[in-house]
Amino acid sequence: MKAIVLYGQRDLRAETVPTPQPAAGEVLVRVRRAGICGSDMHYFLHGRAGSFVPKRPFILGHEIAGEVVAAGPGGDANLLGKRVAIDPSMPCGYCAYCREGRYNLCINMRFYGSASTDPHVDGGFAEYAVAPAANCHVLPEGLDWTAAAMTEPLSVCVHAAMRVGTLAGKSVLVIGGGAIGQLTALVARAFGASRVVLSDIAEFPRALAVELGADGALDAADPDIVGAAEALAPEGFHVVFEASGAPPAVSAAIALARRGGTIVQIGTLPADVTAPLNTIMARELSYLGSFRFANAFGIALDLLSSGRVSVDRLVNATYPLAEMDAAMARAVGKDGVIKVQVEP
Amino acid sequence: MKAIVLYGQRDLRAETVPTPQPAAGEVLVRVRRAGICGSDMHYFLHGRAGSFVPKRPFILGHEIAGEVVAAGPGGDANLLGKRVAIDPSMPCGYCAYCREGRYNLCINMRFYGSASTDPHVDGGFAEYAVAPAANCHVLPEGLDWTAAAMTEPLSVCVHAAMRVGTLAGKSVLVIGGGAIGQLTALVARAFGASRVVLSDIAEFPRALAVELGADGALDAADPDIVGAAEALAPEGFHVVFEASGAPPAVSAAIALARRGGTIVQIGTLPADVTAPLNTIMARELSYLGSFRFANAFGIALDLLSSGRVSVDRLVNATYPLAEMDAAMARAVGKDGVIKVQVEP
Amino acid sequence: MKAIVLYGQRDLRAETVPTPQPAAGEVLVRVRRAGICGSDMHYFLHGRAGSFVPKRPFILGHEIAGEVVAAGPGGDANLLGKRVAIDPSMPCGYCAYCREGRYNLCINMRFYGSASTDPHVDGGFAEYAVAPAANCHVLPEGLDWTAAAMTEPLSVCVHAAMRVGTLAGKSVLVIGGGAIGQLTALVARAFGASRVVLSDIAEFPRALAVELGADGALDAADPDIVGAAEALAPEGFHVVFEASGAPPAVSAAIALARRGGTIVQIGTLPADVTAPLNTIMARELSYLGSFRFANAFGIALDLLSSGRVSVDRLVNATYPLAEMDAAMARAVGKDGVIKVQVEP
Amino acid sequence: MKAIVLYGQRDLRAETVPTPQPAAGEVLVRVRRAGICGSDMHYFLHGRAGSFVPKRPFILGHEIAGEVVAAGPGGDANLLGKRVAIDPSMPCGYCAYCREGRYNLCINMRFYGSASTDPHVDGGFAEYAVAPAANCHVLPEGLDWTAAAMTEPLSVCVHAAMRVGTLAGKSVLVIGGGAIGQLTALVARAFGASRVVLSDIAEFPRALAVELGADGALDAADPDIVGAAEALAPEGFHVVFEASGAPPAVSAAIALARRGGTIVQIGTLPADVTAPLNTIMARELSYLGSFRFANAFGIALDLLSSGRVSVDRLVNATYPLAEMDAAMARAVGKDGVIKVQVEP
Repeated sequence: MKAIVLYGQRDLRAETVPTPQPAAGEVLVRVRRAGICGSDMHYFLHGRAGSFVPKRPFILGHEIAGEVVAAGPGGDANLLGKRVAIDPSMPCGYCAYCREGRYNLCINMRFYGSASTDPHVDGGFAEYAVAPAANCHVLPEGLDWTAAAMTEPLSVCVHAAMRVGTLAGKSVLVIGGGAIGQLTALVARAFGASRVVLSDIAEFPRALAVELGADGALDAADPDIVGAAEALAPEGFHVVFEASGAPPAVSAAIALARRGGTIVQIGTLPADVTAPLNTIMARELSYLGSFRFANAFGIALDLLSSGRVSVDRLVNATYPLAEMDAAMARAVGKDGVIKVQVEP
Repeated sequence: MKAIVLYGQRDLRAETVPTPQPAAGEVLVRVRRAGICGSDMHYFLHGRAGSFVPKRPFILGHEIAGEVVAAGPGGDANLLGKRVAIDPSMPCGYCAYCREGRYNLCINMRFYGSASTDPHVDGGFAEYAVAPAANCHVLPEGLDWTAAAMTEPLSVCVHAAMRVGTLAGKSVLVIGGGAIGQLTALVARAFGASRVVLSDIAEFPRALAVELGADGALDAADPDIVGAAEALAPEGFHVVFEASGAPPAVSAAIALARRGGTIVQIGTLPADVTAPLNTIMARELSYLGSFRFANAFGIALDLLSSGRVSVDRLVNATYPLAEMDAAMARAVGKDGVIKVQVEP
Repeated sequence: MKAIVLYGQRDLRAETVPTPQPAAGEVLVRVRRAGICGSDMHYFLHGRAGSFVPKRPFILGHEIAGEVVAAGPGGDANLLGKRVAIDPSMPCGYCAYCREGRYNLCINMRFYGSASTDPHVDGGFAEYAVAPAANCHVLPEGLDWTAAAMTEPLSVCVHAAMRVGTLAGKSVLVIGGGAIGQLTALVARAFGASRVVLSDIAEFPRALAVELGADGALDAADPDIVGAAEALAPEGFHVVFEASGAPPAVSAAIALARRGGTIVQIGTLPADVTAPLNTIMARELSYLGSFRFANAFGIALDLLSSGRVSVDRLVNATYPLAEMDAAMARAVGKDGVIKVQVEP
Repeated sequence: MKAIVLYGQRDLRAETVPTPQPAAGEVLVRVRRAGICGSDMHYFLHGRAGSFVPKRPFILGHEIAGEVVAAGPGGDANLLGKRVAIDPSMPCGYCAYCREGRYNLCINMRFYGSASTDPHVDGGFAEYAVAPAANCHVLPEGLDWTAAAMTEPLSVCVHAAMRVGTLAGKSVLVIGGGAIGQLTALVARAFGASRVVLSDIAEFPRALAVELGADGALDAADPDIVGAAEALAPEGFHVVFEASGAPPAVSAAIALARRGGTIVQIGTLPADVTAPLNTIMARELSYLGSFRFANAFGIALDLLSSGRVSVDRLVNATYPLAEMDAAMARAVGKDGVIKVQVEP
């Protein structure tokens, strides 16, 4: 089959590789759509993603939707011919974190398109991918490939929301208007936030958020952002999602949170960040990390299936798999780009 | 009455001032013991405590125990003659934070010996103090003044423990072996932690913690503290209480917490701190501020009354009120000092 | 002023009584709309509401909206002329329950139109009512009296939802299609439930719920309701709200809840109920009582103001105050009636 | 090997059966001690345990401690010769309940000595048992067989405590002074309850509880138990554990719980129970089922290993395996019996 293989920094190669064979309990999926995630861009730009350094060439892509075309021994025959979105998480099921229901922290986690384990797990930037039958979520009629391949990033946002407990009746600020930020704003709305505001340094994502239903937007570059926020949330926001990964955004989140409020860190920060941590104590804030997701994929798919979250405006472009270089260039370009997908 | 009045930086004066009169619902307490807290030292050393800057001379001290000698109109006559510990929190009872049960964040909070409100509230470094009857917790027979005046700092630790949810069955690290750190270790033990470890840069507080029941101690200056911790908590600690206020301790807390674990910030940090915040996301930690306390004073008093927490070894010295200068010098001296009290 | 005074069982009298005078911190409200609640009907039909037995004639009605026409000493002058909904809860602010944020359980609670305290608190079935300024929530332009007077019952449902933690992504069954049941279904939808189903023994409330956005309805009289529910929630419902007060509904709730699921009791049951409580243990269910509300009135008003919950279809009829007998007769009639209001 | 096989109601037979062989990942354990649980007695007395009806003869016993004598392929060789307690839970690891961390509700759960699955899983009333290596918890030196075999019932109580959230600083009532009730009282103490009271209709378990550290005891047959409880918990108990399974105990639990309090149902009730469920709404109680345990076995073993819970006084007698009839007769006899164990 044709696949895009990562050989190193800025070195993606279109190759013909053996089509994977589904093992017991697995199925073979003809990939129809795969989104480019920030971590894919990290691998491409830096040859690594944080502490995950590839040891051999492998295939990226973990936002995958496609059609089940074959089942391995014991694979669910009922899935044959079904349109599915693939949950890329393959936790071990028995470590302490799995047992506690936090399987996103599984110490043996295998994850699509990731070098976090050795051997690495090939992802969806290819014509075919194998998947455990249990990871294949059947799409309802009417949900198109574009939306289906957004289930995975939406799951990240659903998980971040669940970290808070509940968003119902709360004022919410999302910092960063990329794909994760925009989706988080939509999730906050769908989960009953009383007020949803998005901040970004650029005009386009702010305008987009408001168009998609946010109650307002803040200019992250405004030196008086705290003053500007007062009209929208006089005592500060109950919940702030930091989805930009920009170090100054942490300070902004701390300044803009209500006393006793919660900040959720979704964006990937540099290793060290300087921030007014004493305020976290003095105003009794909660600063919570959120990593990937657990028990969220089905909820995300349901949000898309029911129309409570619509991603139509978030996917800017779809490229044929063969044009992965152009797709990746567009994705890292940033100007007005929220999400780029490829179509193998 | 005689009182110690703070006039400014390193300017405490013994004066004779009018004895306060209990208003409706209040009682007059003959102060028998008052502890010196870190915030008292801040006012003494810097003329202020963080953002709280005194506008006029006032009396410090919020760790108070004494005897009820008079009741104002409507004050509880049953309290007359009773030995009590005074809860120094006087929240408004109707702001949003009070209504939500987080009255330690009350925007109208009045607090003993604090310049956080104007007029400032005089504290307990005096012969007498007035208190709302409801703030006076009657001491059981057998609980001495030394222990009674420790109820307030113990409440801070109980509150910090409650911020986590539960400590039962969890491994706990306390960073910083001053009064708050030592008391937090004792609270963690009393609340069912499976393992309690204390770290400090000095030998004395480490040895004291172990003597008081901790399962082990770590040298906070050890460059391989992570390696040293492995024997005590192989996957890291479920919960880390940061009670030192030293900026490097935040990085240590992040490095020593188990995946998915919780860090509670009790110590007062400088305004800006540099720390590996990305790890909070990547390991999905929860970094929680803890400020003063709510609904904890009665629990703290019960821990002392029942003997489940003993503070005998934590109070190093008691000075007559007239020797406040010596008492304060001893308190800020640090060498082997956990808690200093005065006896008006 | 004119008022409807309850003298006993089925004994409501239209009388002229002294107009109440706002005390310090209070305002006088010209009542524009007041809804008839189930507890009002209980007082009317039985001369009492559960354990609350009136000791003297008083005025019912706690679902009140109106216009502020005067302020007592210290009452907020900014409220003059404002259209408001009145939060009927007047907790003490200092008992243990208030301090813990569960002020709906306040042992000193005063509540509009209720004989739970002596003296009883007069309610809103009158031309005027006094209210603490802090209890008056200003209505946004465009929110009509009909909706404003629904803020109180909606608060009951918001509170019930908050008892669960979060409804986001969960399947929800509401048993009982009266005002509280219908509103609870709307709240569940607004707070992100993945699936909302309502059951009732009557066709009208079931059809209404579906029309208002529920995903399905169940016939509470169906002997195979468990079988019928399977298509809607194959493993049972994550959350069941029991809003009918009918004893068999408790058994149904237990049978229809998913393993580990939550049942919230909102409806008023008879004193003793027989139910398969062992199943609560064997399937590890949580059966939670929900009583009135705390910290929910503002959230409820926001749901109405933003249009996320619409009550247009739930208010069947509005009668002049003088026709209270007819209004009450219609309210207790039940056939096709969800909510009746009066217009003083 | 020798084993006690259950053939039906009151039909236990000592037989020689094939010694089981450890499969991949399993070990063979020479059973040294096995406790008789209430569910074992149910199988013995009624030929079934609730809805679990045996389809063929099998071996009971799930409170097991012993020595690892062989390892299957891939079984942990490090375990050879080790003294272990066996966690009897074998959840699937991938169903929704497992994924959510509530693996005690696993729909595919296999459990020692239980007919809940077909084939049934043989238990520990035999000379040998096989166990997954991961289920074998190594005993510290100094923990004897008697205590080790109590890890499992103690885990039930730890789980029940965790259902509440935290017991720290709370007043706790345990209803029922059998093994589970006594252990729950010890767990409550170890987890920081401020007050622990046990009620029973018999004198012996009440006296035993007080001797083991409870603050008081109540006579469950006292018609004025509510009055008697007032001295111990003036506003009622924050938490009530119902560990008797007696229907009137549910009413007592409701009457004795503080407003807003929590009741945990651990005891096995008859199918239908009549109780004042309306009070659960009116006082906003939480009535929580607790079934077996999840993530509690290690915590229970730690409580025993550290000496924070001691079970010396709870095990009344140990019989050789060959005298199982006598052991079972003693266990069901009830007079002064808390726990009976057998020694294969």
